[in-house]
Amino acid sequence: MSFKITILGSSGALPVYGRHPSAQLVEIQSRFFLVDCGEAAQMQLMRFGASYHRINHIFISHLHGDHYLGLMGLIFTMHLQRRAADLHLYSHRGLDEIITTQLRYSRSAPSFRIVFHRLEKDAQGVIYEDDAVTVETIPLVHKIRSSGFLFKEKPKPRRVDKTRLPEGLLIRQLAGLKRGEDVVDDAGAILYRNADLTLPPRRSRSYAYCSDTAYVERIADQVKGVDILYHEATFTLDDEARARETLHSTAAQAATIARLAHAGKLVLGHFSARYKELEPILEEARSIFPEAHLALEGVEFIIPE
Amino acid sequence: MSFKITILGSSGALPVYGRHPSAQLVEIQSRFFLVDCGEAAQMQLMRFGASYHRINHIFISHLHGDHYLGLMGLIFTMHLQRRAADLHLYSHRGLDEIITTQLRYSRSAPSFRIVFHRLEKDAQGVIYEDDAVTVETIPLVHKIRSSGFLFKEKPKPRRVDKTRLPEGLLIRQLAGLKRGEDVVDDAGAILYRNADLTLPPRRSRSYAYCSDTAYVERIADQVKGVDILYHEATFTLDDEARARETLHSTAAQAATIARLAHAGKLVLGHFSARYKELEPILEEARSIFPEAHLALEGVEFIIPE
Repeated sequence: MSFKITILGSSGALPVYGRHPSAQLVEIQSRFFLVDCGEAAQMQLMRFGASYHRINHIFISHLHGDHYLGLMGLIFTMHLQRRAADLHLYSHRGLDEIITTQLRYSRSAPSFRIVFHRLEKDAQGVIYEDDAVTVETIPLVHKIRSSGFLFKEKPKPRRVDKTRLPEGLLIRQLAGLKRGEDVVDDAGAILYRNADLTLPPRRSRSYAYCSDTAYVERIADQVKGVDILYHEATFTLDDEARARETLHSTAAQAATIARLAHAGKLVLGHFSARYKELEPILEEARSIFPEAHLALEGVEFIIPE
Repeated sequence: MSFKITILGSSGALPVYGRHPSAQLVEIQSRFFLVDCGEAAQMQLMRFGASYHRINHIFISHLHGDHYLGLMGLIFTMHLQRRAADLHLYSHRGLDEIITTQLRYSRSAPSFRIVFHRLEKDAQGVIYEDDAVTVETIPLVHKIRSSGFLFKEKPKPRRVDKTRLPEGLLIRQLAGLKRGEDVVDDAGAILYRNADLTLPPRRSRSYAYCSDTAYVERIADQVKGVDILYHEATFTLDDEARARETLHSTAAQAATIARLAHAGKLVLGHFSARYKELEPILEEARSIFPEAHLALEGVEFIIPE
């Protein structure tokens, strides 16, 4: 089952050298989540052949332009294509006003319902949940209210071992096996022990998105053991003073969070316009956390089952 | 002296096939005007090596997203680059609220002053004027208030013919020659006749931008003799019913306006997503007005002196 992050953009505030601002498509078990939606995100979705029709939930980390300015264009496009399904938007306060104001002046009543979910300042908690996935906020520290997002698969069922399965089991008995129960007869006597017919569940995968933020060590606690951590790395150590001043992070700081969290992989992004070449950012991170990668546009990060 | 239109985007509402929404850079005698500012216009400016620092006046035809959604990103970029000069925005009502709302939630006080100029409904008149250029509105017919823009050079001075210029003329006498006056002595006696020392002024060039609009024949009256007419051609004749319904134009209608106006050249744009290939649009227009061209991204249309 899928768990894939597609980078649509990872530029800092200035979209230079052909780099696009922050946006990612996160696919988990055929659910499609958009995380941040910088300017031209809809074109990037088209460019990389990603369907935007199936996106039902969009998470906006904060209301700086490079993280949400592509949203209005995407909404207009969905409307023009007669989208019917509700669209859920998760954001700190203000996005509802920004969007409804623009809809009003364009005299557009969208073909679908937009449901606004307001994130609370500094809150850490589950904001989305379905039968297989949860999304929780990660409080970040930035010039305005900013949240990261932690995507987690829920615990999975045990897997029935087809090679050892006796004939004639009932559907409810199969379901019970997946829940870890033994197969019993009507009187409650055990016919088969669960451990004899099943394999352990596949592990639950997770992905954390952290942008924009100063260095905040408690992020590592919340994302402990995450498969992939995306952490902004706007600057290198040479510009640490500038990072502190603007409440951004260096590549070394991002790597430190990844190391403290025992993350599987670190993905670096939100590159400042001062870096035309990104190798120094990558090298700085790898000196602390070897499994570091750059969030280059069009690259897919897949978490295997 | 320069008179150049650079196409940054000419897609209709859906930005498909890598086409970007409406935006054009109009350069007249080293003044830089932006006309419409669809999503990602700032990236298109960078892509085509056009400086956005020198843009002081931005004209927005109407408040459908594909004509203005790139504005906020451009403003943030100008702010990040510490722009100092005033930025003048010309638009129908609403743009001020749309922009100030977004600045408020991003907690950004721009480094420069934004001056909003509100266009009046159905008004035809001069909205910008300096010593060499005027811009006037062209009332269009669309689902919401929509205006085209007519850029005109003012009448130019006569040109002093250096090959025939006597020695010893005073600066004020030279200036008088350019205004069409004879050279006179202190008593008012004619020393040289203007016609003997000067050549006729260079002609005043003009450019009309008309998008989005239904077919409106009076546009041809207002833009009579224009050097280049940009006219939207969202559809071909096959989709004329759709054009009527959505208050857009066909390529044939755009060409008819160009013919009625005796335009020098017609530039077609705002192509519907239903046309992957644009040749049919061009051919339809050329059958009525041979000097028709497609507004392809990156193409520059130059009006020679």
